Amino acid sequence: MLVLLEPETAVAGVLTQSTTASAPVDWCRSQLSTGKAAALVVNSGNANAFTGLKGRNAVQMTVEAAARAAGCEESHVFVASTGVIGEPLEPEKFVKYLGGLAEVADDKAWEDAARAIMTTDTYPKLSTGLAQIADTEIVINGIAKGAGMIAPNMATMLAFLFTDAAIAAPVLQELCSELTDKTFNCISIDGDTSTSDTILLFATGRAAARGQLPITSTDDPRLSGFKTTLHRVMLDLSHQIVKDGEGAQKFVAIHVDGAASDKAARGIGFSIANSPLVKTAFAGEDPNWGRIVMAVGKSGEAAHRDQLAIWFGDIRVAVGGEVDPNYEEVQGAQYMKGRELDVRVSVGVGAGAATVWTCDLTHDYISINADYRS
Amino acid sequence: MLVLLEPETAVAGVLTQSTTASAPVDWCRSQLSTGKAAALVVNSGNANAFTGLKGRNAVQMTVEAAARAAGCEESHVFVASTGVIGEPLEPEKFVKYLGGLAEVADDKAWEDAARAIMTTDTYPKLSTGLAQIADTEIVINGIAKGAGMIAPNMATMLAFLFTDAAIAAPVLQELCSELTDKTFNCISIDGDTSTSDTILLFATGRAAARGQLPITSTDDPRLSGFKTTLHRVMLDLSHQIVKDGEGAQKFVAIHVDGAASDKAARGIGFSIANSPLVKTAFAGEDPNWGRIVMAVGKSGEAAHRDQLAIWFGDIRVAVGGEVDPNYEEVQGAQYMKGRELDVRVSVGVGAGAATVWTCDLTHDYISINADYRS
Repeated sequence: MLVLLEPETAVAGVLTQSTTASAPVDWCRSQLSTGKAAALVVNSGNANAFTGLKGRNAVQMTVEAAARAAGCEESHVFVASTGVIGEPLEPEKFVKYLGGLAEVADDKAWEDAARAIMTTDTYPKLSTGLAQIADTEIVINGIAKGAGMIAPNMATMLAFLFTDAAIAAPVLQELCSELTDKTFNCISIDGDTSTSDTILLFATGRAAARGQLPITSTDDPRLSGFKTTLHRVMLDLSHQIVKDGEGAQKFVAIHVDGAASDKAARGIGFSIANSPLVKTAFAGEDPNWGRIVMAVGKSGEAAHRDQLAIWFGDIRVAVGGEVDPNYEEVQGAQYMKGRELDVRVSVGVGAGAATVWTCDLTHDYISINADYRS
Repeated sequence: MLVLLEPETAVAGVLTQSTTASAPVDWCRSQLSTGKAAALVVNSGNANAFTGLKGRNAVQMTVEAAARAAGCEESHVFVASTGVIGEPLEPEKFVKYLGGLAEVADDKAWEDAARAIMTTDTYPKLSTGLAQIADTEIVINGIAKGAGMIAPNMATMLAFLFTDAAIAAPVLQELCSELTDKTFNCISIDGDTSTSDTILLFATGRAAARGQLPITSTDDPRLSGFKTTLHRVMLDLSHQIVKDGEGAQKFVAIHVDGAASDKAARGIGFSIANSPLVKTAFAGEDPNWGRIVMAVGKSGEAAHRDQLAIWFGDIRVAVGGEVDPNYEEVQGAQYMKGRELDVRVSVGVGAGAATVWTCDLTHDYISINADYRS
């Protein structure tokens, strides 16, 4: 996939915290400081991760070809790769097409772009939103790919967001970091963190031609509506990733409250969301709230066992540290048959709260991953 | 299962660090300080965890009945329960049999005892060892149960070790804690931590009648051979638990060296051992070392990406941050067909090293856990 951007497009991003980050991630990290972008190249099938000097050379070759195709500086080219880790990427296979792609570039090809970056995804992921900055209407479009190796810090594989707003790169970066923390960093499919995770947010500034005065400070009150829309688009894409998790049949929101802090609540939420025993119970439509108790207990965060309460949807299954006397298993079993589940856990310690999103762990996850590479 | 011990048997133990620990664990924690035991009662099928006041009453009723049956003080009775979490335990179902069990107690019934504590285990787990303390021959026997919800801190569900040595409780406790850390705390099946994990080590002191002078200090040089044997018995039992992990088809030792510290090496080891993507690759017999790179990267521990090296058995698959130029996939694929695998990862930072043991993640794990309760 090749994306051509307005010259001097502002760019912000959040990259994987993995210590074995891929060569494209290294490149993006070093270029983000310029805050300027003109082109984005993404390949799927090979992550160009753990590929040593060859990997760096592959990025260099890709960047050179993209800069030629886009007629821009090399430092304004951003790259991302997704797929198998550890096999050398052969950029010769695709760089020769970049010039031709640039000639046929089309501002309506969003779905083609979303399809081009898929690996084990079963459908393309797109989201769009409209916002106002003062009197100017602004568009935000996003595409993402997910499927496996999805866990926070950060949670997605790749997501690219584009807006025509005129917003300075430092402001864009603050928005991107803050909203990533509430969206892509709150999802988990399997607790595994990719070497290639990349979110990039591009603001072309084209709306300036329609009268939008540039935004250069995060305190600018005109930013509010834009931020709300951007949050909604990022949340939508992050939920699409969970719903298309490898083998996923259920989408589960886990709400934790009563924790020592919001951070502690998130820790408990992820302990539940990443527990294989909890996730297999979801797959089996078993209202096995005992495993949720276990996952709270192993999180390492403070929880008051004898004040713990658990709900499946509106059904309170446990309260005061034991099964709710009014709970009937048949209710829980019926609730678990749904495709979208809400689990709420109240841990009785403080006022911290968080929501994380995950999916179930099914036979198909095993099938997909026991022979993904071969 | 009822075990009758010599009066004044010394006892030591390590209990789950879960904040939602079961009622039997609470009881054992409060009684361990006395250092004395005369009886042990274990039931399987119900964990008596998250059962509130009812759970505490069930423990009390069990302890009273066992004390009557054994003719000992209540504070010298130890209890453990394993099975479903969150359902009230009805001790009426088994306490009436304790008197009869005490009458037929038999010092050869080790295998029956090991069978009695099984849940989803497919075979009973026993281990035995002989040691010398000065001129006296000492026996160490152990039984354990595992199967699922197995992760460190601590790693087993239940393990009980018995020796006729005369060793004071504080010395026993130090041995138990130190060796648990090298054995049961170095295994993981699914990264989930039980509410019920219990290791108890009993020393009846019967060897004193054969001339063994009591050991009252950890500095006693006579302890060395005993400790070696105890370590071997505990390691054997912990490996049996991994080999019988739910759905497990492969036993995998993960050796990490070159880490910043031993603790960091263990963190990297568990990041690999608990990764669903690594474990499904083992299940698929796929030498997918890229996923090991991913798991090193997500561990949060220091690793030098460009000096990372990985071996499957004696086959070096990666070196210097990329695939080994001499590695051929057919070698790796052949190696992965084995039932016992050794993975070695060298992360190029320091001198820290650790070994952890795990199993693969198969379709059977999903089947067992999607409908274990129903």
